[in-house]
Amino acid sequence: MKKINVGIIGAGRIGQLHADNMLRSNVFNLKVIADIHTDHLKGTHFEQQIPLISTDPEEILTDPSIDAVFICSSTDTHVHFIKAAAKAGKHIFCEKPISFNIEETREALKAVQEAGVKLQVGFNRRFDQDFRKVYETVRAGTVGNPHIIKITSRDPQPPHEEYIKRSGGMFMDMTIHDFDMIRYLSGKEVVEVSVKAANLVDPIFEKYNDVDTAVTTLTFEDGSLGVIDNSRQAMYGYDQRIEVFGDLGVAFAENERYTNVQIATKDSILLDHPKFFFLDRYKAAFMSEIHEFANAIIENKAVTCSGEDGYKAELIALAAQQSVKEKRSVSLSELEKEDVRV
Amino acid sequence: MKKINVGIIGAGRIGQLHADNMLRSNVFNLKVIADIHTDHLKGTHFEQQIPLISTDPEEILTDPSIDAVFICSSTDTHVHFIKAAAKAGKHIFCEKPISFNIEETREALKAVQEAGVKLQVGFNRRFDQDFRKVYETVRAGTVGNPHIIKITSRDPQPPHEEYIKRSGGMFMDMTIHDFDMIRYLSGKEVVEVSVKAANLVDPIFEKYNDVDTAVTTLTFEDGSLGVIDNSRQAMYGYDQRIEVFGDLGVAFAENERYTNVQIATKDSILLDHPKFFFLDRYKAAFMSEIHEFANAIIENKAVTCSGEDGYKAELIALAAQQSVKEKRSVSLSELEKEDVRV
Amino acid sequence: MKKINVGIIGAGRIGQLHADNMLRSNVFNLKVIADIHTDHLKGTHFEQQIPLISTDPEEILTDPSIDAVFICSSTDTHVHFIKAAAKAGKHIFCEKPISFNIEETREALKAVQEAGVKLQVGFNRRFDQDFRKVYETVRAGTVGNPHIIKITSRDPQPPHEEYIKRSGGMFMDMTIHDFDMIRYLSGKEVVEVSVKAANLVDPIFEKYNDVDTAVTTLTFEDGSLGVIDNSRQAMYGYDQRIEVFGDLGVAFAENERYTNVQIATKDSILLDHPKFFFLDRYKAAFMSEIHEFANAIIENKAVTCSGEDGYKAELIALAAQQSVKEKRSVSLSELEKEDVRV
Amino acid sequence: MKKINVGIIGAGRIGQLHADNMLRSNVFNLKVIADIHTDHLKGTHFEQQIPLISTDPEEILTDPSIDAVFICSSTDTHVHFIKAAAKAGKHIFCEKPISFNIEETREALKAVQEAGVKLQVGFNRRFDQDFRKVYETVRAGTVGNPHIIKITSRDPQPPHEEYIKRSGGMFMDMTIHDFDMIRYLSGKEVVEVSVKAANLVDPIFEKYNDVDTAVTTLTFEDGSLGVIDNSRQAMYGYDQRIEVFGDLGVAFAENERYTNVQIATKDSILLDHPKFFFLDRYKAAFMSEIHEFANAIIENKAVTCSGEDGYKAELIALAAQQSVKEKRSVSLSELEKEDVRV
Repeated sequence: MKKINVGIIGAGRIGQLHADNMLRSNVFNLKVIADIHTDHLKGTHFEQQIPLISTDPEEILTDPSIDAVFICSSTDTHVHFIKAAAKAGKHIFCEKPISFNIEETREALKAVQEAGVKLQVGFNRRFDQDFRKVYETVRAGTVGNPHIIKITSRDPQPPHEEYIKRSGGMFMDMTIHDFDMIRYLSGKEVVEVSVKAANLVDPIFEKYNDVDTAVTTLTFEDGSLGVIDNSRQAMYGYDQRIEVFGDLGVAFAENERYTNVQIATKDSILLDHPKFFFLDRYKAAFMSEIHEFANAIIENKAVTCSGEDGYKAELIALAAQQSVKEKRSVSLSELEKEDVRV
Repeated sequence: MKKINVGIIGAGRIGQLHADNMLRSNVFNLKVIADIHTDHLKGTHFEQQIPLISTDPEEILTDPSIDAVFICSSTDTHVHFIKAAAKAGKHIFCEKPISFNIEETREALKAVQEAGVKLQVGFNRRFDQDFRKVYETVRAGTVGNPHIIKITSRDPQPPHEEYIKRSGGMFMDMTIHDFDMIRYLSGKEVVEVSVKAANLVDPIFEKYNDVDTAVTTLTFEDGSLGVIDNSRQAMYGYDQRIEVFGDLGVAFAENERYTNVQIATKDSILLDHPKFFFLDRYKAAFMSEIHEFANAIIENKAVTCSGEDGYKAELIALAAQQSVKEKRSVSLSELEKEDVRV
Repeated sequence: MKKINVGIIGAGRIGQLHADNMLRSNVFNLKVIADIHTDHLKGTHFEQQIPLISTDPEEILTDPSIDAVFICSSTDTHVHFIKAAAKAGKHIFCEKPISFNIEETREALKAVQEAGVKLQVGFNRRFDQDFRKVYETVRAGTVGNPHIIKITSRDPQPPHEEYIKRSGGMFMDMTIHDFDMIRYLSGKEVVEVSVKAANLVDPIFEKYNDVDTAVTTLTFEDGSLGVIDNSRQAMYGYDQRIEVFGDLGVAFAENERYTNVQIATKDSILLDHPKFFFLDRYKAAFMSEIHEFANAIIENKAVTCSGEDGYKAELIALAAQQSVKEKRSVSLSELEKEDVRV
Repeated sequence: MKKINVGIIGAGRIGQLHADNMLRSNVFNLKVIADIHTDHLKGTHFEQQIPLISTDPEEILTDPSIDAVFICSSTDTHVHFIKAAAKAGKHIFCEKPISFNIEETREALKAVQEAGVKLQVGFNRRFDQDFRKVYETVRAGTVGNPHIIKITSRDPQPPHEEYIKRSGGMFMDMTIHDFDMIRYLSGKEVVEVSVKAANLVDPIFEKYNDVDTAVTTLTFEDGSLGVIDNSRQAMYGYDQRIEVFGDLGVAFAENERYTNVQIATKDSILLDHPKFFFLDRYKAAFMSEIHEFANAIIENKAVTCSGEDGYKAELIALAAQQSVKEKRSVSLSELEKEDVRV
């Protein structure tokens, strides 16, 4: 089997994560990693194992042997690189969100559509084994038609100020994963968004006009409901649970713990903590998402998280932002101009 | 210790439940049970064990030896009996809701206040051992200041049409328990209510202008949030869970199962079902609530669920109904005219 | 329905427990409680609610209106009272063990057999809802033919020296419950017993030639195996678990906790403790066992724990004692002279 | 950092597993894999990624660049290759058991001792995250001094007849892992072994004078107890649980499930199955064990499972076999001639 030749744009945390997963895989041939800064890669195993470390992404885009580009750079550069990669005929894996500007996202998707390349958006949680099992249970009809879908999604600790500043706000940065997951589980489109949000964790969020705590209610096209509760700080670890309640039953995915050990003494009965960090919790999911992407290319099948999925989640995030600002329910029809299919 | 002499008004399911608990208790002396219909009590153990079965509630109110009256009749009679019992100087235990009319509720509470008798409202869940443990954990500061309080409250199956017709609607009949619980857990007042509701379980609810599925978001006076999800039908049993998430941690009360047995075979790994019916789930709580009431009388202490608690929960239920009707968030200040303290 | 008139012989902890359960029941009419010491009952609710408190058990045995006798006195008096009650034509409920002397037990059972009265032995755990569910699962064939049955049975704390002295030793006092349970679950007879025991908890046990820690392996007639581990002190609470592993699967009964609450903070994820004391853990079972006994009398059916069950468990306990003493496996055929059927 | 150059002897399931783990690691440089049969490797990724696939193990032993040899061939060749590798000055990783002949094992260990190379035995379960957590909890003193250590170890299905024939019997093939684990957890030596075993799963075991079901009781040097229950067939999956009960508390490691999903419907409340196969259950442990071995070489530290550990577990397995054969408890002192320290 021919390996897929890959270039990664962006050598930050997430770019390095994908690089490591590719180096451990037999499907990818990682040829280039490019970033405006590459000094931090000096002396690492990346230097030994990746043929080219470059400060110029053009070296990826102009290399005819490259099959696919992973866009792991900052969000404000995504649209530019998607268009350039599409034009160069490369398949594209792009981290979420596609952009902070829904118009530009739409244009990027059109460019992909015209080029006829594949685009997968980095909603890694769709590949988590627990959430996948819930998804399959719902699809199999075991819990019937979903009436209420609940997601609890709480970070273990707030990001740094530099990150908050550029994050696009909690809904676009963090809840966007939940917006995608709730669409994925439901199999239906969201038509209305209503948010109650607060600043309870750290005043730093307020400084950047952001919130740190929220309860978001979503109405689906068939009248069924979704609810997501978010916090930027759960002291006990990364809290990632989903629940699909339907007319025949309910499926829950509980948190994964570091171990299944229970310790009982006179004073306490202790369980292990949930996995603390997203790199622990979704370790296998990150590996699976690039393999499903490879598979979509090799077998010319649909990707699991399409550009349209990225676009829809972004739209819901915008509606959530507006709901907080205007203290009212916001219909997606107010924001959506035309349909996108990529 | 002198026993408390009691008369029960209303010999339906809940009146009989309290009667049975009193007959098994050493604190109460159940002297009379009164109802407009008493034929169904003929030949039962009640006939043998309760000195007087009457069709006239006046026999309770005019009996000077009666210390306390349990009002277990239909909701539309509550206010009348509260006023009469207060006037007669009896302590009062009244099932929820106090009434469907907030003005009349306020008047009833004034009558209680003037008479100086005790009034406890039948929010039995406050006495559930699991919820009490969560309450105590929150009060002890273990999870810090609550940021998000979540309640899942789903009935195992819809009530009969006759019941639906007179129930006052899902928020006044069922969610009112959750409104009380969320105030109890939070220790703060609700200032705003926002509901998304739907008819997904049975068209019968729509016939009576009622809903069967809802997600209710509540904003507390300090900006922290509450969210309640309700359904009239959970196929797997009575689903009663609470979660208090604060800045230091989280406390969950999971469902109680019939047994702690796990059965593992080639095909399945099975747990036992959650307790199916509220009489199973809250069996011990029903016993505890009347004993805490007795204790409040004997030691002249405050009751655990005051008239004010009943009034506030009713107010939130009204706001929820209005939120559904007007498709907007409703502030409690729009509905509340004056404070009540009983 | 006619109530069963009862006299209780023995007004210690277990006699009082049965008395309280009868007073809360509609099936029993508790007429007399007799003990050589009755001073401790003065001023209690027993004095108010039981017609006769006597120092002479003969008042029970000679009262023609008494239908059934509960023998809750010290073990060395059981055989005497069984014989006397049988002779008086009373049905008998006797606490475990029937006696410390297998010959005398056999004689007592013969007296019961001749009198044609019912005898139930106080193996209350057969009536526990969790263990009953495992039993029913096994009987239904869900886990197939049992291959290994495991019981963990650990007391929360050692009894007092006075109790140890008269207990008959750990196997006769504590493990006898497990011997009965393993026969009940298996549905087969034990043919061989092999014990490894130790003194690890408290030297006081050694003083009375007793042990405090043991692993007992049992071989059933069909070659399948059982294993019981005991300790006189589990610091985290009363540890009572069973597991039936068969060729089609396994059924577990886990410990019951005080609540289903989980509390998660930065430092720990806490569950509630298992119920600490046998009166908490087996509260409902104690109530059920006397009602099943009543039912056996009223409907003239077989009791759930027969005299033969008491005899067999005693026989296994003797074999266990001998196995420890002689450091070898002991066959029950070495101890059993003739079969008993009561 | 210099990588460790490795040759693997034996290209069966376990040899391939180690090869794959090395290919995904940055610590090992896998240079050769040798087996008498290598046809099955043709056209696999091993052919592409391992420089030399050989039918002659001598190519490993005589290659001066090779630092360490992994012995993954059949048990009857272990001693030969250990001696040869030791003589060639290579560090050795050897699968369990070292041999079926305790004298030969001792000689192999002497050769290792003389050569001064490192030897690690493949008790992979010591590296499992759950069991490691229990081990650390015990070492930290949290549960106090162990009184009873329990291991449940049941295979999901019996091996093929060919495997059974050459396995050395259940105790030497399967329970040997548990013997090692119980020594590891206890930190004490076993002095006596008592087994009750049976043929309940499949008559094929009897044909080879083997058993398929057993309960093994172990006595430690301080009088504390261990108990292991084994079956060759657990229909619900691979059942691997441990429990260390001490004077201060208890630590349990429960089974790992495929997912943490719970599915509740009218008919059932379902959990996911335990991981079915040892390659799933101990996947991470297999990766960790070769890294801890590498680390022991690189930092010249003691290995986690020494030759002595392999020897002691083998000795216990022999005692278990003898206990079944002679139907009695067997002291290890009957079998052990002299101490081995490697």
